[in-house]
Amino acid sequence: MNLIVLAPVAATLALLFAAYFSFCVIKESEGSDKMQQIAKNIRTGANAYLVRQYKGVGFFFLGMFIVLFLLSSFGYVSVFVPFAFITGGFFSGFSGFLGMKIATSSNARTTHACSKSLNAGLRVAFSSGAVMGLIVVGFGLLDLSIWYYILDWYYRGLPIAERIVYITSSMLTFGMGASSMALFARVGGGIFTKAADVGADLVGKVEVGIPEDDPRNPAVIADNVGDNVGDVAGLGADLYESYVGSIVSSCALAVAAGLGMQGVIIPLLVASIGVLASVIGTFFVKTGEEASQKVLLGALRRGIYCSAIIIAIVSYFLVVQVLGSEYIGIYFSILCGLIAGLFIGFFAEYFTSSTYKPTKQLADSAVTGSATVIISGMSVGMLSTSLPVIVVGISVIISYIISGGMNNFNLGLYGIAISAVGMLSTLGITLATDAYGPVADNAGGIAEMAGLDAAVRKRTDALDSLGNTTAATGKGFAIGSAALTALAFIAAYKDSIELLVQKNHIDFTFDLSILNPQVLIGLFVGGMATFVFAAFTMNSVGKAAGMIVVEVRRQFKEIIGLMEGKAEPDYASCVDICTKAAQKELIKIALLGVATPLVVGLILGPNGVAGLLAGATTTGFILAVMMANAGGAWDNAKKYIEEGNLGGKGSDAHKAAVVGDTVGDPFKDTAGPAINILIKLMAMVSIVFGLFVLTWSIL
Amino acid sequence: MNLIVLAPVAATLALLFAAYFSFCVIKESEGSDKMQQIAKNIRTGANAYLVRQYKGVGFFFLGMFIVLFLLSSFGYVSVFVPFAFITGGFFSGFSGFLGMKIATSSNARTTHACSKSLNAGLRVAFSSGAVMGLIVVGFGLLDLSIWYYILDWYYRGLPIAERIVYITSSMLTFGMGASSMALFARVGGGIFTKAADVGADLVGKVEVGIPEDDPRNPAVIADNVGDNVGDVAGLGADLYESYVGSIVSSCALAVAAGLGMQGVIIPLLVASIGVLASVIGTFFVKTGEEASQKVLLGALRRGIYCSAIIIAIVSYFLVVQVLGSEYIGIYFSILCGLIAGLFIGFFAEYFTSSTYKPTKQLADSAVTGSATVIISGMSVGMLSTSLPVIVVGISVIISYIISGGMNNFNLGLYGIAISAVGMLSTLGITLATDAYGPVADNAGGIAEMAGLDAAVRKRTDALDSLGNTTAATGKGFAIGSAALTALAFIAAYKDSIELLVQKNHIDFTFDLSILNPQVLIGLFVGGMATFVFAAFTMNSVGKAAGMIVVEVRRQFKEIIGLMEGKAEPDYASCVDICTKAAQKELIKIALLGVATPLVVGLILGPNGVAGLLAGATTTGFILAVMMANAGGAWDNAKKYIEEGNLGGKGSDAHKAAVVGDTVGDPFKDTAGPAINILIKLMAMVSIVFGLFVLTWSIL
Repeated sequence: MNLIVLAPVAATLALLFAAYFSFCVIKESEGSDKMQQIAKNIRTGANAYLVRQYKGVGFFFLGMFIVLFLLSSFGYVSVFVPFAFITGGFFSGFSGFLGMKIATSSNARTTHACSKSLNAGLRVAFSSGAVMGLIVVGFGLLDLSIWYYILDWYYRGLPIAERIVYITSSMLTFGMGASSMALFARVGGGIFTKAADVGADLVGKVEVGIPEDDPRNPAVIADNVGDNVGDVAGLGADLYESYVGSIVSSCALAVAAGLGMQGVIIPLLVASIGVLASVIGTFFVKTGEEASQKVLLGALRRGIYCSAIIIAIVSYFLVVQVLGSEYIGIYFSILCGLIAGLFIGFFAEYFTSSTYKPTKQLADSAVTGSATVIISGMSVGMLSTSLPVIVVGISVIISYIISGGMNNFNLGLYGIAISAVGMLSTLGITLATDAYGPVADNAGGIAEMAGLDAAVRKRTDALDSLGNTTAATGKGFAIGSAALTALAFIAAYKDSIELLVQKNHIDFTFDLSILNPQVLIGLFVGGMATFVFAAFTMNSVGKAAGMIVVEVRRQFKEIIGLMEGKAEPDYASCVDICTKAAQKELIKIALLGVATPLVVGLILGPNGVAGLLAGATTTGFILAVMMANAGGAWDNAKKYIEEGNLGGKGSDAHKAAVVGDTVGDPFKDTAGPAINILIKLMAMVSIVFGLFVLTWSIL
Repeated sequence: MNLIVLAPVAATLALLFAAYFSFCVIKESEGSDKMQQIAKNIRTGANAYLVRQYKGVGFFFLGMFIVLFLLSSFGYVSVFVPFAFITGGFFSGFSGFLGMKIATSSNARTTHACSKSLNAGLRVAFSSGAVMGLIVVGFGLLDLSIWYYILDWYYRGLPIAERIVYITSSMLTFGMGASSMALFARVGGGIFTKAADVGADLVGKVEVGIPEDDPRNPAVIADNVGDNVGDVAGLGADLYESYVGSIVSSCALAVAAGLGMQGVIIPLLVASIGVLASVIGTFFVKTGEEASQKVLLGALRRGIYCSAIIIAIVSYFLVVQVLGSEYIGIYFSILCGLIAGLFIGFFAEYFTSSTYKPTKQLADSAVTGSATVIISGMSVGMLSTSLPVIVVGISVIISYIISGGMNNFNLGLYGIAISAVGMLSTLGITLATDAYGPVADNAGGIAEMAGLDAAVRKRTDALDSLGNTTAATGKGFAIGSAALTALAFIAAYKDSIELLVQKNHIDFTFDLSILNPQVLIGLFVGGMATFVFAAFTMNSVGKAAGMIVVEVRRQFKEIIGLMEGKAEPDYASCVDICTKAAQKELIKIALLGVATPLVVGLILGPNGVAGLLAGATTTGFILAVMMANAGGAWDNAKKYIEEGNLGGKGSDAHKAAVVGDTVGDPFKDTAGPAINILIKLMAMVSIVFGLFVLTWSIL
C-alpha cells in the first residue's frame, strides 16, 4: 500500500530532470546580437499573449469558482470541489507556461547549434521538448498525489468505499479545471498561431512574393510567437489534461470494479513508472553527427521504444504486487493500451508523411489545382479515420475481455480505462518528441530573419519536417486516449448520479439503451456539438486571419521602404491583433463546452447527458482524427512539392498545395486537437453538476 | 379495415396524373433542329450510362439474389425475401429511369418555353418534376400495397401477430433492394455528374477561359448528361428508398406497439393521403407571366403548403377512424414530422441561400482567396448542422411523448417512426419542386449551346438558381427522415433478432446500453463508416474528374479548329470515360454498405450491430447535413458574386469562389446525399442477415 509514495517521488524526479535539461539548454549560446534580439521579440510577444490570456481565463475561473462555491454551499457538490477546480486549471496552465518559457529560450539556441551541426540542433531542441514533457507528467502526477494525500487524510473517518468516492470525485473536479484551462490554451493559442500563420502567408508569400519568415513581413514575429503559444503552451495544457483525465477516470471506477483502494493507486503507479521510464528513455535519444532524417527519426523512436519496454516489464510486477496475480488481466489491459498507442502513432505517420502513398497522391492532385487538392485532402483525412478507430475498437474489446469484463462488467470498464493510462504512460517522452517541433520551426524562422547561411536553414527545415510527423503522433495519442477514457467518464457519470440518487432519495433509474429517445437525441446533439465547436474555432481563425491580412497590407502600403528592407515593420501591432482576436472568441467557445451538458441535462435528464457524451466521443473522435491527419497530409504534401517534386516551389502545383496547407492549418492546429478537450470538459461538467441537473431536469 | 384499398387507388391515381403531366410536356415543341439535336445527344448519353449502370447493378443483384436464395433454403430468411429484394431494387431503379426519361424530354422544351416567358418555362420544368414526384410516390405505394396483399393472403393461416411479422420482414427486404439500387444510382450518378462538371469547369472555365456550357467544351454534353443521371435518376431512386423505408419501418413496429394490423395500414394510408394531397397541390403551382424569382418560389411553396394542410386535416380523421380517438397522439406525431420537415426545409434555405447572412459572409471571405473561402464554407456547413439536429431532436421527443411513449415504450417508438412518414408525406410535391432543378439546369445548357438569345439564358438561370434552393430542401428531407427512421430500424432490428432468438432457442439477450463496449465500438465503427464512405465517393469523383481533365486537354490540343468553333469536339468519349469511372468504383462502395454490418455482427454480435447503426446515424446525419449545406452555400456564394457583387465574374473573388463551388460539388451531390442511403442499407442488411450473424457471431 505504501507503494503510493512512488508517485510523488517519480514526479519530483521528473521535475528535477526537467530542471537539469533546462540548465543544459540555457548554457548554450543564443548566437549573434541579431538572433538574440529576434528571440527577445518572440519572447516578449509570447509573454504578452499569455498575460492577457491568463487575465481572460482568470475571469472565467473566478466565475466558475463562485458557481461551484455556491453549489457546494447548497450541498450540491463537496467542499473541495471549487478548490480542486482552481488548482487543476492553475497547474494545466502553469505546465503550458513553463513549456513555453523553455521553448522561447531554446529557439535561437537551436538555430545557433544548427550552425554547428544537425545533431547539435536536435539535441538542443529535443532537450527543450524533454523539459516540457517532464514538466507535464511531473506536475500532473505530483498534483494528483498531493490531492490524494489531502483527501485521503481528510476523509480518513469514512468507510473505505465512501472515502474513495469522495476522493475520486474531487480529483475529477481537478481534471475539470485542467480541461477548462486546456481548452482556453489550445483554442486561444490555436487561433493566435493560425491567424498569424495564415495572415502572414496570404499577404507575404502569395501577394507580395517574399519567402516565409522574411523579416520584412510584419506578421512574422506574430507567426513565431504563435508557434509558442499554440503548439507549445496549448499542447502542454492539453496533454496535462489528457494525462490527468485518464488517471482520474480510472481511479473513479475502482470501487465499482471491486478493487478498492488498490484500484485507485494502480493508475498512479503505472503513471509513475511511465515517468521514470521516460526519463531513462530521453538518454537514448542521441545520434552520430550529420545523420540523415531517417536516422534522426529512428533516434527519437528508440527513446520511445525503450520507455515502452521498461513500462511493459515493470507494470507486470507492479500489478502482481499490488492487485495479486488473479488480476493479471489488468496488466494486459495496460499493455494493450501501450501497444495501441504505438499503432496509432504509426498510422498517423502513414497518412501524413510524404514517404507513404496517401500524401504522395495528395501532392499529385495538386497538379490539377487547388480544388482537387482540397477534395483529395478531405478524402485522405476521412479515410485515415478507419485505422485508428479499428485499433481503438480492438483495444477496447481486448482490454475489456482480458481484464475480466465478461464476468464482472465494472472490472472490464476499469480495464478499458486503465488501458488509456497505459497508452499515455510514455507521455513524458512522446511529448518531448512532439514539443521539440515548434522549437525547430522557430529556429528556422530566426535563421531566416537573421539572414544566416542557407545550410543552417536547411538543417532547421529538416528538424521542422521531422516535427510534423511527431506532432501528428502526439495528436493521435491525445484523441485516442480520449476515446478510451470516454467510456470511463460515462461510467463515472452513471456511478456518481446513482450515488446521488441513492443518497438524496430521488426517483430516477438509468436507461442507457440506444433505443431510449433521450439517449438517441443526446447522441445527435453530442455529435453536432463537436461540429459546431469546430466551426466556431475555424471561424475565429478566419476572422482573425482576415484582420492580419488587412494590417499587413496596410503596413506594406504605408511604411515607406519596408519592401526594400530599409524600414522596420511594426511587429507588435500584429501580435496585438492576434492576441485580442483569440481572446474575443474564447468565452463563446468555453461556454459551448460548459453550457451544452447543462442544457441537455435540464431538458433530457441524465440519460440524455450520457447520450451526449457518447455522441460527442463518437463523432468527435472521428472528426478530430480526420482534421489532424488531413491537415498533416496537406502540410507535408506542400513540403514534398517544395523539395522539388512535381515542379517544385513557385509551380502551379505548389500554389495549389499552399491553399491546401492553409486550409489544413486550422484543421490540425486549432479545431482538431481541441476536440478531445471539449469531450472531456463536457464529461466532467456533467459529473460536477450531476445533482443540480438531477434536481431540476424536466424529463 | 378495408380502407387499405385507398393505397393502390391513390397510387394508381398518382401514376395516371404522372402520365397526364408527361403528355402535357411532350406536346410542347422542342425548338429548333439544333436544340433537338443537342437534346438528343444528352438523351443518348444518359441512356448509354443507365444501360451500363443497370448491367453492373444487375450482377450485384444477381449475386445478392443467390446469397439470399441460399439463406432462404437453409431457413435463415423467409422464402419471399430474395424476390422482395429484387422487386425493391427494380422499382427503385425504374422510378429513377422514368424520371430521367421525362427530364431528358423536357430540357429542350423548357428552353423553348423560356424563349416565350419565364412562367412558361417554369410550367414545363415543373410538370417534368411533378411526373418524377408522382412516379416515385405512386410506384412506392403501389409496390408496397401489392406486396402487402400477396403476403397477407399467403400467410392468412397464421395468427395475426406472427402474420404481421412475416409481412413486415418481407417488406423490409423490399426496402433493402430499394436501398441497394438507390446507393448505386445516387453514388454512380453522383460520380458521373460531378466528374463531368468539375472536369469541364477546370479546363473550360479556368484554363481555356470559355464560358460554362460552351459547345466547344468536349465535356459539356457529359456535364448535361450528368445532371440527368445524378440529380434526376439518382434522386428518384434515393427518395423512392427513403419513402418506402419510412413506411416499412413504421409497419414493422406495429405489433410491438400493440396496434396490430391497424398499425400496419396507418403508414400506408397516411402516405396515400399524401399522394392525393400532392396531386392536388401541383395544381396550385402557377403564377402570372414574368413574375419575379421570389414570386416563383412563393408559387412552389404554395403547392407544398396546400398539400401539407390537406394532409394535416385528413390524417386526423384517418387516425380517429382507424385507431380510435384514444390513439390521437399518433396523429400529433404525424403532424410533428410534417412540421419538422417544413422547418428543415427552411433552415436548409437559410444556410444556403444568398439572401441570408451565412452565404453572404461566405462570399465576403472569397475576397481573401480560395483558402479562406474553403475554411469559411466548412464552418458554415458545420454550423448549419445545429438547427436540423435540434429540430429532429425536438421532433423525436415530442412524437415519442405525445404518442404515449412514457407509458408504452414501443408505442412511443412507433410514434417516432410514423413522424418520418408524416415528414415524407408531402414527397409527391416536394420532389416535384426538387426534380425540376436539373431540368432547368439542362435547359440553360441547351440555350447556351444552341446560341439562343441572352434573355432566354437569363430566364433559365433564374429557374436554375431557384432549383438550388429547392434541392437543398430535398436533401434535408431525405436525411432528416433518415434520422427519424433510424430509431425505428434499430428497434425493428432488435425485434427481429429477439423473434429469431425465441424461435431458434438461441442463448442471447440484448444489452444496448452505451456502456456496453460492444455497443460503444459499434458506435465508433458506424461513425467511421460514414467518413470512409464519403472519402471513397469523393476520391472517385477526384479520380474521374482527373481523367476528364486529361481528355478535354487532349481534345483541345489535338482537334484542330476546336477552339475557333470550326470543328466538333468528341462529346461521346467524355461521356464514356465518366460512365466507366462511375461504374468502376461502385462495387467497392456497395460492398462497404453490405459488408460492414456483417463483419461487425460476426465479431461483436447483435449489440455491436445496433451500436453500428446508431453510430452511423448520428455521425452520418451530421456529416450529410454539413456536406449538403456547405456545398449549397459555396454554389450560391459563387452565383452571388457572378451577379456582380464583390467584383463580379472574372474577379479574384470569383476565382476563389469557383474553387469553393468545385469542392462543394462532390460534397453536396455525391457524398452528402448518399449517406442517408448507406445508413438505411446497413440497417436492412443487418435485419435480413440477422439469423446468420446470430448463429456465427464470435461474441
